[in-house]
Amino acid sequence: MIGISDKEFIRGEVPMTKQEIRILTLAKAQIKSGDVVIDIGAGTGSLSIEAAKIARQVFAIEKDEKAVELIEANAEKFGVDNIIIINATAPNGLEVINKVDVVLIGGSGGSLESILETVNKRLKNGGRIVINCITIQTIFEAINYFKNHKNYTYEAIQVQINHLQQIGSYDIAKALNPIYIVTAVKN
Amino acid sequence: MIGISDKEFIRGEVPMTKQEIRILTLAKAQIKSGDVVIDIGAGTGSLSIEAAKIARQVFAIEKDEKAVELIEANAEKFGVDNIIIINATAPNGLEVINKVDVVLIGGSGGSLESILETVNKRLKNGGRIVINCITIQTIFEAINYFKNHKNYTYEAIQVQINHLQQIGSYDIAKALNPIYIVTAVKN
Amino acid sequence: MIGISDKEFIRGEVPMTKQEIRILTLAKAQIKSGDVVIDIGAGTGSLSIEAAKIARQVFAIEKDEKAVELIEANAEKFGVDNIIIINATAPNGLEVINKVDVVLIGGSGGSLESILETVNKRLKNGGRIVINCITIQTIFEAINYFKNHKNYTYEAIQVQINHLQQIGSYDIAKALNPIYIVTAVKN
Amino acid sequence: MIGISDKEFIRGEVPMTKQEIRILTLAKAQIKSGDVVIDIGAGTGSLSIEAAKIARQVFAIEKDEKAVELIEANAEKFGVDNIIIINATAPNGLEVINKVDVVLIGGSGGSLESILETVNKRLKNGGRIVINCITIQTIFEAINYFKNHKNYTYEAIQVQINHLQQIGSYDIAKALNPIYIVTAVKN
Repeated sequence: MIGISDKEFIRGEVPMTKQEIRILTLAKAQIKSGDVVIDIGAGTGSLSIEAAKIARQVFAIEKDEKAVELIEANAEKFGVDNIIIINATAPNGLEVINKVDVVLIGGSGGSLESILETVNKRLKNGGRIVINCITIQTIFEAINYFKNHKNYTYEAIQVQINHLQQIGSYDIAKALNPIYIVTAVKN
Repeated sequence: MIGISDKEFIRGEVPMTKQEIRILTLAKAQIKSGDVVIDIGAGTGSLSIEAAKIARQVFAIEKDEKAVELIEANAEKFGVDNIIIINATAPNGLEVINKVDVVLIGGSGGSLESILETVNKRLKNGGRIVINCITIQTIFEAINYFKNHKNYTYEAIQVQINHLQQIGSYDIAKALNPIYIVTAVKN
Repeated sequence: MIGISDKEFIRGEVPMTKQEIRILTLAKAQIKSGDVVIDIGAGTGSLSIEAAKIARQVFAIEKDEKAVELIEANAEKFGVDNIIIINATAPNGLEVINKVDVVLIGGSGGSLESILETVNKRLKNGGRIVINCITIQTIFEAINYFKNHKNYTYEAIQVQINHLQQIGSYDIAKALNPIYIVTAVKN
Repeated sequence: MIGISDKEFIRGEVPMTKQEIRILTLAKAQIKSGDVVIDIGAGTGSLSIEAAKIARQVFAIEKDEKAVELIEANAEKFGVDNIIIINATAPNGLEVINKVDVVLIGGSGGSLESILETVNKRLKNGGRIVINCITIQTIFEAINYFKNHKNYTYEAIQVQINHLQQIGSYDIAKALNPIYIVTAVKN
């Protein structure tokens, strides 16, 4: 079952997708046991780890060397050995991977459109792309890409999670930043 | 993988937990392959069906006869044969079930406290209770129960999902009603 | 004081900005007693009416004839006589209005950029534009315009309101659709 | 017009109601020019200042001495001289104030019910109480009080605001913590 607790991951200073967003992203991705998955902007590797527990092979693309070390440390901690880390800035690093079933995009570093162009060539028919967007520009670009590529159908949701923090006899609502999740299926 | 699409379920007029809430509820429940699960206020059975694909045995408690028929129809559609439907108003119907690993509470019909009292006696140590709350009174009562029963630790979140509806060249935000999810672990 | 209750307005079938959004829009607009205000996509006239109770003159631009009748009916009901209704599709109808202090944009019918170009020529230095956006495309375009016109500073917020509906002894959260509010000041 | 910018207030370390919440709270309060207003848990005085610009007289109740100094400093900065500060822990300090039109409750320090009991005796018929609640316990208690006192009608909303932070060419959503606003009218 997906849903590793945030505090289980080794985190350092690298921002991490929060548990609830990770759960929804993975469920929208509908990863199956034989799948090849790419995780772009892998960060601490939290999505890669959970994907690797289900999929056959996960490629984690990450430009930041410190984050690469965290992915390695987390892979070891959770005992997963089917993650190949590519220390590159996407779309660089993607060209060697073929017949992909699922692509997760957590960070695109301002290159979302060229990433999607490259991903499109490597994604199987029936494959899925799931994008997490925290800016207006990224959600707009993601939707715009799929509107202009009619071989995809997509859905987009916005998720806002508040945690109730227990302080004495009170439970105080603390907001996480909202995020858009776009799920596209290639037909 | 959890995450059956809403439109796959046979629904009738009975209200149904939406896909994203179902995903988060099931992931918070951390159901395992050998588990015994109770789904209280099962409604259309959407949670029961997804739980039954993972667990050993699911008991679906539902007071409404029309909803019971929907659970049966959905169980047949999804080919799951490990759901026992109990047509009763909880906490009635719970007394025959023992050594429970996970309890999902989607509807409590105003009897949350007595349901929790009964559930508490039947839940294994280490077992989990996950409650979906759409009213202020229910989230308050759920939290209050676990504050007063120190053998539980709990977390509570509020989830708000907006769907982007595709109308022509526009994507318009449509809100789903927010929901609280309380997850308690019995120590 | 701003904040007329929704149910006070004559509504018909025309969609109406909800009270809380109207309050925030008007407060962000910082309308003063001598101001000239344009309300583009005036709908039922709810924003125009509240603006007219503060400002010197309000121009309500509305393309739909049925909505125009509602604006007239509401102006009469609330006893405001300083609204001039222009039955046109913006940016048409704007060219006759000069030295504008505040522009409210509730509906842009897919012409936001040309509306903003026209508004820009008629808005005083120090004047304000407040835009309500319910689609990803509109919030993106609004922000993009102000990013590209450095004589404006802007802020943008997203507002999500849930009403607690009183049903028996329960209060059930009912979501309104979320909305972005962009406030730009011309320097 | 209500809606002073957050950064205009002298703040210190004391938590301050954010602008959008202040706007909605004041509009729900429907303060009029001759009104007597009590602001309980006044904090930095941001609500008191905006109320004092409309009302005849504002009483700011605040237990924290440092906050009292901030209220004084802000009153001076904004040139309002109709705020009386009472350095007390409510319901203490309320007993000297009579014929009140509006009561704002931003902080209740765990004594909401006794505060409401005291307020009830001092509030005119037709008067309003507006309560900001950041905990599950407070929103529950507030609603519960008005359910049990049939001389009040109430409405309750939850407000969630996200600010779009401008970072380079991107606008990133940053969440403020959600808040419930309860508005009760005494009949």
